[in-house]
Amino acid sequence: MSERFTVTYHVRGTAANIEARAQGIAVEQSVEMPLAAIRNEMVLSEIVGSVESIDDLGNGVFAVGIGLATATVGQDAGQFLNMVFGNTSLHDDVILKDVAVPQTLTQLFGGPRHGISELRFRLKLPERALTGSALKPQGLPSEDLAILAEHLTRGGLDFIKDDHGLADQQYSRFSERVSACAAAVTRGVRSTGHPTRYIPSLTGNLDQMRAQAAVARDEGLDCVMLAPMVCGFSTMQALVCEFPEMAFFAHPSMAGAVRIAPELLIGKLFPLMGADSVIFPGYGGRFGYSRETCRDLAANARHPYSGLKSALPVPAGGMTLERTKEIIDFYGKDTMLLIGGNLLLAREDITKETERFTRAVGDFSL
Amino acid sequence: MSERFTVTYHVRGTAANIEARAQGIAVEQSVEMPLAAIRNEMVLSEIVGSVESIDDLGNGVFAVGIGLATATVGQDAGQFLNMVFGNTSLHDDVILKDVAVPQTLTQLFGGPRHGISELRFRLKLPERALTGSALKPQGLPSEDLAILAEHLTRGGLDFIKDDHGLADQQYSRFSERVSACAAAVTRGVRSTGHPTRYIPSLTGNLDQMRAQAAVARDEGLDCVMLAPMVCGFSTMQALVCEFPEMAFFAHPSMAGAVRIAPELLIGKLFPLMGADSVIFPGYGGRFGYSRETCRDLAANARHPYSGLKSALPVPAGGMTLERTKEIIDFYGKDTMLLIGGNLLLAREDITKETERFTRAVGDFSL
Repeated sequence: MSERFTVTYHVRGTAANIEARAQGIAVEQSVEMPLAAIRNEMVLSEIVGSVESIDDLGNGVFAVGIGLATATVGQDAGQFLNMVFGNTSLHDDVILKDVAVPQTLTQLFGGPRHGISELRFRLKLPERALTGSALKPQGLPSEDLAILAEHLTRGGLDFIKDDHGLADQQYSRFSERVSACAAAVTRGVRSTGHPTRYIPSLTGNLDQMRAQAAVARDEGLDCVMLAPMVCGFSTMQALVCEFPEMAFFAHPSMAGAVRIAPELLIGKLFPLMGADSVIFPGYGGRFGYSRETCRDLAANARHPYSGLKSALPVPAGGMTLERTKEIIDFYGKDTMLLIGGNLLLAREDITKETERFTRAVGDFSL
Repeated sequence: MSERFTVTYHVRGTAANIEARAQGIAVEQSVEMPLAAIRNEMVLSEIVGSVESIDDLGNGVFAVGIGLATATVGQDAGQFLNMVFGNTSLHDDVILKDVAVPQTLTQLFGGPRHGISELRFRLKLPERALTGSALKPQGLPSEDLAILAEHLTRGGLDFIKDDHGLADQQYSRFSERVSACAAAVTRGVRSTGHPTRYIPSLTGNLDQMRAQAAVARDEGLDCVMLAPMVCGFSTMQALVCEFPEMAFFAHPSMAGAVRIAPELLIGKLFPLMGADSVIFPGYGGRFGYSRETCRDLAANARHPYSGLKSALPVPAGGMTLERTKEIIDFYGKDTMLLIGGNLLLAREDITKETERFTRAVGDFSL
């Protein structure tokens, strides 16, 4: 039989109906038609999905393992998502819980091209936890964002990313903003000696994102950010392949709205598609992810399968300076601590506050 | 003040906390940082989102209206989704319920380029409900899919679409399949005299989808299908603009997994981005959409705003011949009835069964 891989769904059901429901998912995610209408033997044996396991998890929830034929994915990342959850996403009794990605697909999609070790190498930081902040608010002209970028750089941060709201708006066009911010970070780096990385956010369609990535590269940058659930997995894959020198940071915009377990989608699938680093809503901030979800997500990102590189987890969304020790204790040192809005509250003392933050991360990483 | 548009969220909350929660959404979907840290007056007055209304819907659910600045969208369809739901998608107490799309954005995105009237014109069918079926299962070689396409065409269908599982797999490469199926449909049309349309499904990244759309055009086809939630809104917009002669059919793959009301996402936003026709899970089939959701979705697609064209609703997912009258009575005649798997159950009698279907639609459309 040709290669299959196992997709695990959590399904609400009863002992009486779960077998039929599982068989329904197996058909929906493969041939999507009555089996009685299929005459081709190869399709029946090789393409139709198969129920591999049903486990009662209690409380009316079952873990259902479905074997899908790798051949149905073709070579496309979007089709991969389509095959594992496309139509079944329309059934609200189902969560996509896990995918045992086969080596055929890890080789096809390639995973992080750089990962934690290369990010550490670029920053000459073999050990301590990493630091980051964000340029915001959108609406500021590029020169104001650049001033902020310089202040933050002078505070000694490792990474400064565009807020995900910064796109290519009238008030700060991409090229102008990236050029101004890259220059500002370079000025800051000259004064600190620390090789802070600026991460612009790519938006638009593939043509536009490709042009933006080229702008970033021409400005001497080696990191970019994108939102896989907004641009699509296929777009992401194209960019990851075309810009091999770039480290890709994945933003979770729109990722929470899907009934896909975050530890799978953000922790496992974003890295599979080439994310060197994944930003996610850390527990205890503005978003509701549990400690357990955050721990599993970070573990998935850092301990991938089939020889893929490790991706850097970035808990974000309401982090504060006071939580530095707690966050490092929880996630460990292969983590970027990202404080955005809360650093900006320091207003004119932004550089000093940033220094406090970077110092705290250094201290607690010992 | 610069232009704003209203986004409506349904939020689970209490009378005591809903105002703070609404303000939280207004900030999250605009500047995403503490307002106290913003010094720029323009940003505070023009960019920060505003709470416009809070209505208690009962049962612990509130309708919250937030005014967002149109300027934050820039010119990009992906950024539009990012602005209306990006980070808030990460909060599971919120559903995106509606968007009052302003004229600036309807003009920018353009809506259906053809819509119902042009589809009717192409088919020379001013009145009756429209019919469709799907080529499946995936796994069949292209020549078998083509034989099926000819049988279905000889049954007098209006539209024959690729199943959304058909991508560019080893067992039926896109070009070969589309070429074979287009020729088969042409043979069928020659015998029936009815101008049946074949709708290939586009997959991959923008470059690949663009090449596929060009193949379709070169085969003389004027309809294609794509899944907006897989390829991304920005990709869809690029294709809609580049292939003005093509009518675009939107497939709902991955659209159910998002906490966005289907009548908004499929009924309103897919057409806004250029879908001439929207396929959705009809009530009473394999999927769980209610009659009310289906009615609202179809109404949104057909009665758009700001002078956009009407998009053709296509209830699907488990339709049967026996339900023809019921479906036409419920949705009216500006509807395509799509029966996929259930027609295929007729096996060698597929053409006759298809004729029964097309005749029934004609009869009940009187």
